Amino acid sequence: MSKLLAVGTVAFDAIETPFGKTDKILGGSGTFVGLAASYFGVDVGIVSVVGGDFPSEYIKMLNSRGVNTDGVEVVKEGKTFFWSGRYHNDMNSRDTLVTELNVLADFTPVVPEAYKDASIVMLGNLHPLTQLSVLDQMDRKPKLTILDTMNFWMDSALEDLYTVLKRVDVVAINDEEARQLSGEYSLVNAAKKIHEMGPEYVVIKKGEHGALLFNKGKMFFAPALPLAEVFDPTGAGDTFAGGFSGYLAKTEDISFQNLKNAIIYGSNLASFCVEKFGTQRMENLQPEEVQRRLEAFKELTQFDIQLN
Amino acid sequence: MSKLLAVGTVAFDAIETPFGKTDKILGGSGTFVGLAASYFGVDVGIVSVVGGDFPSEYIKMLNSRGVNTDGVEVVKEGKTFFWSGRYHNDMNSRDTLVTELNVLADFTPVVPEAYKDASIVMLGNLHPLTQLSVLDQMDRKPKLTILDTMNFWMDSALEDLYTVLKRVDVVAINDEEARQLSGEYSLVNAAKKIHEMGPEYVVIKKGEHGALLFNKGKMFFAPALPLAEVFDPTGAGDTFAGGFSGYLAKTEDISFQNLKNAIIYGSNLASFCVEKFGTQRMENLQPEEVQRRLEAFKELTQFDIQLN
Repeated sequence: MSKLLAVGTVAFDAIETPFGKTDKILGGSGTFVGLAASYFGVDVGIVSVVGGDFPSEYIKMLNSRGVNTDGVEVVKEGKTFFWSGRYHNDMNSRDTLVTELNVLADFTPVVPEAYKDASIVMLGNLHPLTQLSVLDQMDRKPKLTILDTMNFWMDSALEDLYTVLKRVDVVAINDEEARQLSGEYSLVNAAKKIHEMGPEYVVIKKGEHGALLFNKGKMFFAPALPLAEVFDPTGAGDTFAGGFSGYLAKTEDISFQNLKNAIIYGSNLASFCVEKFGTQRMENLQPEEVQRRLEAFKELTQFDIQLN
Repeated sequence: MSKLLAVGTVAFDAIETPFGKTDKILGGSGTFVGLAASYFGVDVGIVSVVGGDFPSEYIKMLNSRGVNTDGVEVVKEGKTFFWSGRYHNDMNSRDTLVTELNVLADFTPVVPEAYKDASIVMLGNLHPLTQLSVLDQMDRKPKLTILDTMNFWMDSALEDLYTVLKRVDVVAINDEEARQLSGEYSLVNAAKKIHEMGPEYVVIKKGEHGALLFNKGKMFFAPALPLAEVFDPTGAGDTFAGGFSGYLAKTEDISFQNLKNAIIYGSNLASFCVEKFGTQRMENLQPEEVQRRLEAFKELTQFDIQLN
């Protein structure tokens, strides 16, 4: 079976939205990537770190969904990374209320032996040198490496980010991050500049406005599925990345044509993630639901104009 | 030949963008709708008003593109509607610098005899009672009536707007207007509420983020074509409406399936409009260019996932 290695956070989130609020619940980029990728029945392993306060039920739940957590280090005397945020009424912007790095502050990822030959590697949003150290631990060059990053690293570790960008195949970032990284407002020009930094594929996530895939002149767009209610956007971007990388791990086809499909599956799974708080919806996702929503994506985007 | 009647402004615009600025040039919603619709070789007539200061060259240019201007009243002693605006660096927001209604203040549209049997009617953004008076002048019920409106009329003439909404088939407004009209943030819910006000079809324009078409539960999305450079967004929304209504006038097929195509053609033509100042690009648009861009839209949106 095809292996996917995902490096990211496994964390506690406390979320407030106009619909309600949660106590500390399961969150983190690695968690959402793992849950989404597991949908495809691939062998997905997370590399992350948690504290002694992390409930074993969460680990059991991840394992029961087929997410391997051997690479999740437990620092017994430490506390798990904690983030708390409040979404505004439009659900598109949020305020961060609390960020406690805790055990994440000294995180040195160790890739388990069993995942050193993973064909797809998803490098979650961490310090670029941490991302690099994961690549350096691989036994062989992965078939495809995907990188997420954020403005913070562009401000504080740009040279390191350039170094890791040279070694990845896909960068998946949001529109504002693409603009900052490239210095270009137009996303077409931004993608062109980012191609020159290394990645053959550039995925630009625009939240509720969908996602663009660029491949040196070629372009594909997947809308976000318009929903009557967005309950909690937390984890949608990571679920998109998990759907994208999970589908690629399953199919092991890294052609532009197949990356299009991966983008659609990413949008598909992300559209479920936002329907409930945290990981709730993703923990119980059924194949029939995903297939029905795939039909909805087709109806939403496919047309047939006869040229004349 | 199928007839399209378009009511809207014919105006002077003075535009500043980060790329440059213009003196008074040709603008107005009727102008952009007419030019876009004329691309399809339909018989399009504009109903509008201009002052004695309006250059005959502009009228000649419109006529040479096949736009009938018999319904454009000339008030000799009056001045033409004038708008001036400045776009911000992101090209998505703008400041209005000057609005001089001039002859538009007392505009009473008169539909020429020859267009009283038009099959498609495009009601540009004017006072709802002005829009109603156009519908009342028609000899027979048009096959399809499309309405544009704006926040201003929702604030100042909501009851009149409700009255005209009951008599149109399609409303085409932007996302903020849809939210204000419906009181719903989610565009899915907004469309549902607007359906209840009368229109069978709801088109929600999201500018650079594309356009959504709703038809009582069915949904279609057309992205805006991502461009390396947006030179001047003025008229893009009206060009979209002109492409949409012009294509429907040409095909005379008002099925959901064909309205999808009309949305794509609207986005297609709008992507040209923004490439130069004012009407410049639309005055010289060639069929081969539109066909090539249609291919670009297909590549941008079409995918083929084999279910498994």
